[in-house]
Amino acid sequence: MRIGGRPYRTIWLNEDGWSVDIIDQTLLPHRLEIRRLTSLAEAAEAIKTMRVRGAPLIGATAAYGVCLALRADASDRALDEATATLAATRPTAINLRWALDEMRAAVGLSGSERVARAYARAAAICEEDVASCRQIGAHGAGLIRAAADKAGKRRVNILTHCNAGWLACVDWGTALSPIYTAHDAGLDVHVWVDETRPRNQGASLTAFELGAHGVPHTIIADNAGGHLMQSGQVDLCIVGADRAAANGDIANKIGTYLKALAAHDTGVPFYVAFPHSTIDWTLDVGLGRIPIEERTSEEVTRITGRLADGTLASVDISAPGSPAANPAFDVTPARLITSLITERGVAPASREGLLDLYQERK
Amino acid sequence: MRIGGRPYRTIWLNEDGWSVDIIDQTLLPHRLEIRRLTSLAEAAEAIKTMRVRGAPLIGATAAYGVCLALRADASDRALDEATATLAATRPTAINLRWALDEMRAAVGLSGSERVARAYARAAAICEEDVASCRQIGAHGAGLIRAAADKAGKRRVNILTHCNAGWLACVDWGTALSPIYTAHDAGLDVHVWVDETRPRNQGASLTAFELGAHGVPHTIIADNAGGHLMQSGQVDLCIVGADRAAANGDIANKIGTYLKALAAHDTGVPFYVAFPHSTIDWTLDVGLGRIPIEERTSEEVTRITGRLADGTLASVDISAPGSPAANPAFDVTPARLITSLITERGVAPASREGLLDLYQERK
Repeated sequence: MRIGGRPYRTIWLNEDGWSVDIIDQTLLPHRLEIRRLTSLAEAAEAIKTMRVRGAPLIGATAAYGVCLALRADASDRALDEATATLAATRPTAINLRWALDEMRAAVGLSGSERVARAYARAAAICEEDVASCRQIGAHGAGLIRAAADKAGKRRVNILTHCNAGWLACVDWGTALSPIYTAHDAGLDVHVWVDETRPRNQGASLTAFELGAHGVPHTIIADNAGGHLMQSGQVDLCIVGADRAAANGDIANKIGTYLKALAAHDTGVPFYVAFPHSTIDWTLDVGLGRIPIEERTSEEVTRITGRLADGTLASVDISAPGSPAANPAFDVTPARLITSLITERGVAPASREGLLDLYQERK
Repeated sequence: MRIGGRPYRTIWLNEDGWSVDIIDQTLLPHRLEIRRLTSLAEAAEAIKTMRVRGAPLIGATAAYGVCLALRADASDRALDEATATLAATRPTAINLRWALDEMRAAVGLSGSERVARAYARAAAICEEDVASCRQIGAHGAGLIRAAADKAGKRRVNILTHCNAGWLACVDWGTALSPIYTAHDAGLDVHVWVDETRPRNQGASLTAFELGAHGVPHTIIADNAGGHLMQSGQVDLCIVGADRAAANGDIANKIGTYLKALAAHDTGVPFYVAFPHSTIDWTLDVGLGRIPIEERTSEEVTRITGRLADGTLASVDISAPGSPAANPAFDVTPARLITSLITERGVAPASREGLLDLYQERK
């Protein structure tokens, strides 16, 4: 997608043919800075500190992390160490594990072509993600069009949580791809953007990318969505996912469950969009089974923003001495989800629904 | 309650017998500053800018605002102007309207004793609020004790939203009064404190006052409560209210509805505590009828905290150019509330429940 008219992806191979550039998302929306990854350690650090985040992008970055590791040392031991190091960076997004499995399968047993094979598979993972996200956009836009038909002449209001846009993927996004597709097709859409505490990916990333693309949107506190749904100001919700269980339960950014409850209580459709790499077929159910990452309490008690002179500063916002807890994800039970949207189409949030889309898993 | 060992109320008459001191809550938890109110305009400004906030304290401050106005001009015209000015400061908390009605009734038709009568009624409103809050504490502590019996030897985990502590009242608090009472009686309680965006009254005020009193607590993002309830880490919720309708629907800080939904979905008891002055007997239902205050978008996009050197600074945290919306309250339907707690006792959230407590309203 474009920033200031110039097309970007979130991650790309440099002209040197081996190093990898990313947009450092910890600095957005305040600064657009490109960061170069040249080693396994740098790739792992970028994922762990959330310079890159979003389940599909975590997977893509991990794939290139394996490439960087093998370039330094193509041995089996180095491969094992690389996948173990990368797998330990974030626990919830299953795309990370999926990408590492893909890479292990692709690089083969040994030999001089390992590095080339790794780079080829990492590039393919990125291209596949872009293609999946475009398909998610096409399928999901149909749901927005249906809501627009129902809304008549007024604009369609869509609520989203966290950032599941192109910044969370390689391009296009999962939850936001249908919105971009609908907007580009001329539908009058407006997005309620949950700020998404504690890391504010909504206010900083989703608002930034929607603004850059010209999609009308309004930032709200995470607390506001229930009231907006109660008062008829939301036509549908679309969120992404960090892991989907085989029964359609999904883990997503903390607070997603609360919005799904409000949508269910007020009759607002609640859609979850993700590519096949987000599905964990080994989990029969998600609730109580998907590991929930606990992050540092400082993410809750300290926040970074722009001072009046434009420089960045961090301020402590809580009562001194009060501890904080920071679970980063929650699980939304399938019963609260209207439909799932994947690159294969739209399906009920159930084992049957997912198997209908992925018949090869039957 | 005490700060640093010294007893405080949130509002008090000075030794000069006419001016009124308040704790400036916009500076907490960073600074404890007392601010003197000497005129109607200063009282109205203090309410409007939330130097004082919390439904009972808004009522008490409005009462003293009438005193300050009448001291300057005891005419009927001045009384009308004072009540109109104060009534327009905040739309949702009904205690404000209640206190103004009480003051109008108390000051009489005219005459030189008006000012003295006004100060007497304002002082009585404060004392009545303290007594009501103590009673709410006594009644609510029984519910916490029941949860403790059920929890066995482990501590009781209570989730609260926003600040309905002594800082929201004259002393003791509404939602926090049962917690103080239970804690003081030796029960092992721990409080999950919703930070309560956008103004962070949880992280700044509730955490501050619980910490000052020595009650174990942990700050969480507003998004986290649903996950904590899903995973069995919450035994009960207690919140306050800004207005209760006659059917038991309650308006409270934005986001309360989302927590009530999660409590209902996970079988966690959800209690709402308030004094009689919070009940709007003129409203048969609350949902769609209680006016919801819209506050400035800057409360969402800019936040104040402490820099590393301890000085205060405000930082912009959102994508530049993105608009924000800021509804300040939502309505929790009575069907999601386990019980109401008032100074008269504990009752079902229904017309019958409230009328049982306030039989004089039948």
